[in-house]
Amino acid sequence: MTTQQLVSQINQKKSFLCIGLDVDLDKIPTHLLALEDPIFEFNKAIIDATHHLCVAYKPNTAFYEAYGIKGWQSLEKTIQYINKNHPEIFTIADAKRGDIGNTSTMYAKAFFNDLAFDSVTVAPYMGKDSVEPFLAFKDKHTILLALTSNNGAFDYQTKKIDEKELYKHVLETSKTYKNSENLMYVVGATKAEYFKEIRKIVPNAFLLVPGVGAQGGNLQDVCKYGLSENIGLLINSSRGIIYASKEHDFAEKAAEKAKELQSEMELILS
Amino acid sequence: MTTQQLVSQINQKKSFLCIGLDVDLDKIPTHLLALEDPIFEFNKAIIDATHHLCVAYKPNTAFYEAYGIKGWQSLEKTIQYINKNHPEIFTIADAKRGDIGNTSTMYAKAFFNDLAFDSVTVAPYMGKDSVEPFLAFKDKHTILLALTSNNGAFDYQTKKIDEKELYKHVLETSKTYKNSENLMYVVGATKAEYFKEIRKIVPNAFLLVPGVGAQGGNLQDVCKYGLSENIGLLINSSRGIIYASKEHDFAEKAAEKAKELQSEMELILS
Repeated sequence: MTTQQLVSQINQKKSFLCIGLDVDLDKIPTHLLALEDPIFEFNKAIIDATHHLCVAYKPNTAFYEAYGIKGWQSLEKTIQYINKNHPEIFTIADAKRGDIGNTSTMYAKAFFNDLAFDSVTVAPYMGKDSVEPFLAFKDKHTILLALTSNNGAFDYQTKKIDEKELYKHVLETSKTYKNSENLMYVVGATKAEYFKEIRKIVPNAFLLVPGVGAQGGNLQDVCKYGLSENIGLLINSSRGIIYASKEHDFAEKAAEKAKELQSEMELILS
Repeated sequence: MTTQQLVSQINQKKSFLCIGLDVDLDKIPTHLLALEDPIFEFNKAIIDATHHLCVAYKPNTAFYEAYGIKGWQSLEKTIQYINKNHPEIFTIADAKRGDIGNTSTMYAKAFFNDLAFDSVTVAPYMGKDSVEPFLAFKDKHTILLALTSNNGAFDYQTKKIDEKELYKHVLETSKTYKNSENLMYVVGATKAEYFKEIRKIVPNAFLLVPGVGAQGGNLQDVCKYGLSENIGLLINSSRGIIYASKEHDFAEKAAEKAKELQSEMELILS
């Protein structure tokens, strides 16, 4: 998918919501557990109920790997279901991968070609040659971890190298990478004022923003500093939406929560 | 496996060799491709031929994920084969994972419990709460990326924060983590003099060392500065061993290459 197609979808749906499909068998409605593939059935119901309210789905691969081959099958079925029924939706494999060059290419093939995701999250610690292999794929997007939403973000990411925070170095350096137009960035919502600084470095790049809701971030604040000319934000919510209810009405309740966020976004966009 | 069991194995085999099982279908002998699971058959033959010469096997998960569910099955069969037939061998899932707390726990369960690996490699960028969930597993080991063997290592890892390189901060900070005794570190072999610095910070920790051979590192130099009281080194070789031949004699040739390294190690240990 091209960035322009993503922007068109946002304008059409008046939403820049991303729903995190982080499915934990301990948290989904118990009546689903009797089915052959509870994870996929859960995702399918959530997708059917929310696809008109969001522009992206983001399964975190950890939640699928935790169930071994069965989990991997659920992930494959989920992405196939989205791509077949809602091809306009932007898909994110939240995998946080990154390795030496030839190995990163293997990961890129796995997520971009085989699973046909539009994008994958990548960790920056190993530097340029661990990221560029992902960027070589046309109309696929590499979402680089810049400033994450957890407490550990303050361990290294906000520490200064030559009087500038590490996450800013990550942003600046990445702009020099080959095919850097395929880059997006993970920026946590926990401190909205950071977005002002980040927009000075990457004024137009899309930012994937976790941490609104469950982790305490505020949508208004993030948008105040984070919105770009072509919107440039994907706000992720996982638990706050998908676990809104543990009863038979779980998909309906998830849609209600998604609608709340979408309405807030519509207001901000207008 | 406990660290003491690993050290005993090293002393018994007079080897601290780790073999990287990075299986690429384009590089293995073509006669294997007709079999139902060529990746597993390749690994099985390599393991049968080399298990007495090495103390650890390290599949890089990228090479398995690249083949989807089939690849995941090959990985599962490989680890089961090692654990059943050579339970003394230390197993490393080279996965370079790392995510916010509850998600890291999912990865830890996937690799430590379900797949029953002894250890997993983890990226440090997201800080303490992304690493500690892995450390909570008894007799399991978390191998934190400190200084990697690729060129990109010089992008951030060797840059200074408060006059000290980032990789040293990673080493020092990690020593304060809960259950830090379960930590090992990835340290590339490309610059042997770094080991002198690293041993000042982690005098006894095990270091997993890629980059000897194909990537240009020298075994003698690494050992000169890197060996600790209880050896403390696992030297990895992947391509140099497993792709020694593309003919029917591939396993035999792999064993010859492994024997060369083991002999060099035996000499160093004596």
